[in-house]
Amino acid sequence: LLTLEVCLTPSLIEQHSLSGKAVVVVDIFRATSCMITGMNHGIAAIYPVATVDECTQLGAKGMVMAGERDGKKISHFDIGNSPFEYMMDEWKGRELTVSTTNGTLAIQKSQEGNVLVMGAFLNLTATVQYLFELNKDVVIHCAGWKGTPNTEDTLYAGMLISRLMNHSFELSNDSAQLALALYENHQSDLLSAAKKSSHAHRLAKFGITKDIEFCMEVDRFAGVVICEGNKLIKI
Amino acid sequence: LLTLEVCLTPSLIEQHSLSGKAVVVVDIFRATSCMITGMNHGIAAIYPVATVDECTQLGAKGMVMAGERDGKKISHFDIGNSPFEYMMDEWKGRELTVSTTNGTLAIQKSQEGNVLVMGAFLNLTATVQYLFELNKDVVIHCAGWKGTPNTEDTLYAGMLISRLMNHSFELSNDSAQLALALYENHQSDLLSAAKKSSHAHRLAKFGITKDIEFCMEVDRFAGVVICEGNKLIKI
Repeated sequence: LLTLEVCLTPSLIEQHSLSGKAVVVVDIFRATSCMITGMNHGIAAIYPVATVDECTQLGAKGMVMAGERDGKKISHFDIGNSPFEYMMDEWKGRELTVSTTNGTLAIQKSQEGNVLVMGAFLNLTATVQYLFELNKDVVIHCAGWKGTPNTEDTLYAGMLISRLMNHSFELSNDSAQLALALYENHQSDLLSAAKKSSHAHRLAKFGITKDIEFCMEVDRFAGVVICEGNKLIKI
Repeated sequence: LLTLEVCLTPSLIEQHSLSGKAVVVVDIFRATSCMITGMNHGIAAIYPVATVDECTQLGAKGMVMAGERDGKKISHFDIGNSPFEYMMDEWKGRELTVSTTNGTLAIQKSQEGNVLVMGAFLNLTATVQYLFELNKDVVIHCAGWKGTPNTEDTLYAGMLISRLMNHSFELSNDSAQLALALYENHQSDLLSAAKKSSHAHRLAKFGITKDIEFCMEVDRFAGVVICEGNKLIKI
């Protein structure tokens, strides 16, 4: 059986061995949801970077600049971190660079993995299918919020587990059991559970409840997004 | 309303403010379960320490020496880390010193708290009552396993939350939501859930399934155990 483990926050990722494994990075509100949305709406490639400066440099070379700090758009950027901004026709065929509070950190800390997959509810079934075909051990790496676990990413981890474990995977750490229980407890109403999260409360204060609802939609898109070298591509 | 938050492992405790709060330290398998058992069986006081050397020094002064590393008794100690060893008549009225892999670390990292309470299923209702009377914000600090979250401590956190939140407490972080979901998902059979944990599998290999069953018993004891200065006392 292949192993299936969950890391609830990047603060704990050093305790996992990623070598040779598929790492699914998830930041539901909103980095990976946005990336998957953009790549399924015709953006050519996405370059996640750590700093605003790096984004600005790539922007000077013609890339769309996207990002937020603490949930707010960076002032001189083209767009912030809303999935609706990633769907605009004017970005089609262009490259985009992005820096966010939690998501890009989790991507950086996952580079040791053999394959790096972006995770979101928006293309969950496509990702499940991809992981089956890949046939590697899986680590689900939740971006969390500033170093602590969060509800929405853990909920995604639990749903992904529930789809994978009936086949060739077995749960290999207790955090995977926690995630699965969270999902099983809330599977009849994922949106309500996610709305109770601390991060959802923060986002609601910015008046972007529609982002929350969008990011909790399951299987809107069929394209899987992986990281190749330093950029994200759709496969 | 008073705040109620969960820290899933000592690796994340720096992200919590403990000042002025009650901190409940829990290491179900087996440190805090043993401590509560011993204090409810007549041990006069327990001194948790970080190292085997410190235990040995206190042992030379007449204390009972208890402890384990990686689940195994330390060779020259009087007892290991089984609750049954803590119930022996010959320890009545004596002081004991203990060092364990995870539990004593969590106690050390909780010292900033205003009140430090030992948590276990064995005296859950007594602890709930004590926390109500205390009327302070609560942080439940799970000892976990070598820096990662575990099932049994999180299950306890969830059960404690379920008892506290209907009154004057509100959940203040997402880890508290995770813990509550884990408990709600398994409340009809806590023992089975705990037996699925990685740590339970490790302990079962040592042939101490009876310890696991004992530690999952709810409300065997009525005495609450708190830390005063550098020692644990029963109140």
